[in-house]
Amino acid sequence: MMMEDRIGAFVAHGRIDMLLSDTGPLAGMTFAVKDFFDVAGLPTGAGSPDWLASHAVPQASASVVDRLLNAGARLVGKTSTDELAWSLNGENYHYGTPINPAAPKRIPGGSSSGSVVAVAGELVDFAVGSDTGGSVRLPASYCGVFGMRPTHARIPITGAVPLAPSYDTVGWFARSGDLLEQVGRVLIPEWREPATPPRFLIADDIFEAAGSAVKAALAGALESFGPAEHVVVADGGLTAWRDAFRIIQASEVWQAHSGWVAEAQPGFGPGIRERFADAARLDSATIAEALRVRQGIRERLDALLGKDGILLLPSAPGAAPLRGTPAQELEAFRAKALELLCGAGHAGLPQVSMPLGAIDGCPIGLSAMAPRGHDERLLQLVGTVTRLHG
Amino acid sequence: MMMEDRIGAFVAHGRIDMLLSDTGPLAGMTFAVKDFFDVAGLPTGAGSPDWLASHAVPQASASVVDRLLNAGARLVGKTSTDELAWSLNGENYHYGTPINPAAPKRIPGGSSSGSVVAVAGELVDFAVGSDTGGSVRLPASYCGVFGMRPTHARIPITGAVPLAPSYDTVGWFARSGDLLEQVGRVLIPEWREPATPPRFLIADDIFEAAGSAVKAALAGALESFGPAEHVVVADGGLTAWRDAFRIIQASEVWQAHSGWVAEAQPGFGPGIRERFADAARLDSATIAEALRVRQGIRERLDALLGKDGILLLPSAPGAAPLRGTPAQELEAFRAKALELLCGAGHAGLPQVSMPLGAIDGCPIGLSAMAPRGHDERLLQLVGTVTRLHG
Repeated sequence: MMMEDRIGAFVAHGRIDMLLSDTGPLAGMTFAVKDFFDVAGLPTGAGSPDWLASHAVPQASASVVDRLLNAGARLVGKTSTDELAWSLNGENYHYGTPINPAAPKRIPGGSSSGSVVAVAGELVDFAVGSDTGGSVRLPASYCGVFGMRPTHARIPITGAVPLAPSYDTVGWFARSGDLLEQVGRVLIPEWREPATPPRFLIADDIFEAAGSAVKAALAGALESFGPAEHVVVADGGLTAWRDAFRIIQASEVWQAHSGWVAEAQPGFGPGIRERFADAARLDSATIAEALRVRQGIRERLDALLGKDGILLLPSAPGAAPLRGTPAQELEAFRAKALELLCGAGHAGLPQVSMPLGAIDGCPIGLSAMAPRGHDERLLQLVGTVTRLHG
Repeated sequence: MMMEDRIGAFVAHGRIDMLLSDTGPLAGMTFAVKDFFDVAGLPTGAGSPDWLASHAVPQASASVVDRLLNAGARLVGKTSTDELAWSLNGENYHYGTPINPAAPKRIPGGSSSGSVVAVAGELVDFAVGSDTGGSVRLPASYCGVFGMRPTHARIPITGAVPLAPSYDTVGWFARSGDLLEQVGRVLIPEWREPATPPRFLIADDIFEAAGSAVKAALAGALESFGPAEHVVVADGGLTAWRDAFRIIQASEVWQAHSGWVAEAQPGFGPGIRERFADAARLDSATIAEALRVRQGIRERLDALLGKDGILLLPSAPGAAPLRGTPAQELEAFRAKALELLCGAGHAGLPQVSMPLGAIDGCPIGLSAMAPRGHDERLLQLVGTVTRLHG
């Protein structure tokens, strides 16, 4: 049934074949799900050996898994993830780094690393990940596939390990925009075609932050969307957006997991260890100020987008970094990526990354962001993009 | 298309006929929706002339409306509701009281009053309401139909007027358990058949609180479920449950609507006027203590139900009160009803009311409550009940 996994997409305990219906809109399609979501009868590992060891095997599957099975899709694997999903790189200290099929010398991106490479490497038709600060959009950009982050809380994330609940969303990857849309129609049963044409906006300041190579790589794709208004999104700069994101995220991770950390004393890999230590030291005034910043971002993006706006922005500050990039350099790149990506998280807005550019022969994504609850616009758009760009 | 509305089910501005698909699992079915949910292009009144006047006509429909239209059902009306849904009686000071087709001299129950009478009066096949403290379960009991309150937040309530968001759920009514289940299968796309048989529990203390006439009226129905364990649910008594509910509900209503009240200065009917005045005076220590009580109730019900428990309890402390019952007497009855009904709200659990009893020739419902996320158990049960009891 499943092809051999030479790229490290799947977790060891995830060799499965689960089919509940052979009719439905996704009949004949195979999919994989990030090992952050429960699948009945299989352990959930969340990228942490200590998590795996300290949690009972779930008896029920996550809602998203059941919805896809009910639609006729076949589940063939659970996929690798960064430890507790708290990274954007796709490098797991305990389990290693899946291979980026589009650029094998480069990291795949994460935290939905196994899901993105399973799609890019054609092991499955589509795959489910989760996106808190960019964990679907960034790996989609690095690996040259489509990746969707829906409106926050529109698709229930029941049965998944929490990271930062006010940001966490279900997300999914596919090689074609058509299939990305098809999966969306299953996950959004209240699907409604947009009644009006979109109004395109280009995020000048976010392109500026991404740098000239990214701008040049995506210029052709941008033009293909036709007339667009140029706007400055973050008046006060993007670093304030990123800082607020890190603070609120850390405070929510701490709330979700500090009890378990105290009890299980997990042996964290580098990076996540430090992030937990920092989270423990956050004070409430800092968190309150970050929440105030987030409110401003929500209001700004809502005002910009109105009911019909689609904001075009880069998905990443460059092609995927090389494997073995020194930690400090990699961290600086991740921080820059977070600046570009955290807006949708702060405002709960849907954003899709489309594989429409290349830098040095490696993929880079163009993103589109829509108003809250208007996921249909983005998924309709990627269907069109696929038909235009092949 | 629609039968004449002699029972006051529909709001004046709700004479509509909306069909988007003539295929799907609900093809051929008609439905109505409480005027608490948005329908694109129609005003949302929420049972308040001032709300109607001060809100723009929505451009999009509530998720639940779109899901049902996508499944092939035909929307034929928007239905009456108690003012801002803040009552259980079904009497609206501004618009009057719909007729209870099962007991025309008695109140229909609310706040989903128009939806329940549209179903009981056979004007539609099924109808959507909302349930915060019992606004689907109690009118279902009074009017002799099935009424479902699902797990909190399992079915998105996007596009509805909020009342008390941590309690608010979408709900629905049907005359047969089979149809109640069919609608549930559309609204719960991640539907999964229960893997194990249920374990029945009987809530002795809640039956005691409902009184001997209710116990006698439901004894036969109780027996039909076979062997069951008798349990005491609320060790400290049900009045503490009700008091905590009233406090938390009022604090959330205040948070949701005090801004609008200050601005629009609505002319509230009696009852809701006093409740708003009381809500304004709540202090944070009182609210914190009520939240503590709620946490205890959640833990108690979770422990009782486990993964397979179904708790049987009365839906009401009697048949529907007569129209024109003196206010103080009616209020005492409503308070008693709230004691029986608030547990599911506090714990976010699904509960269904089944029309399985009668007192003086008037309907009374038997309720079943399931563990969080196990709505399928209840809907499967009512399908069976319909086949057993005709």
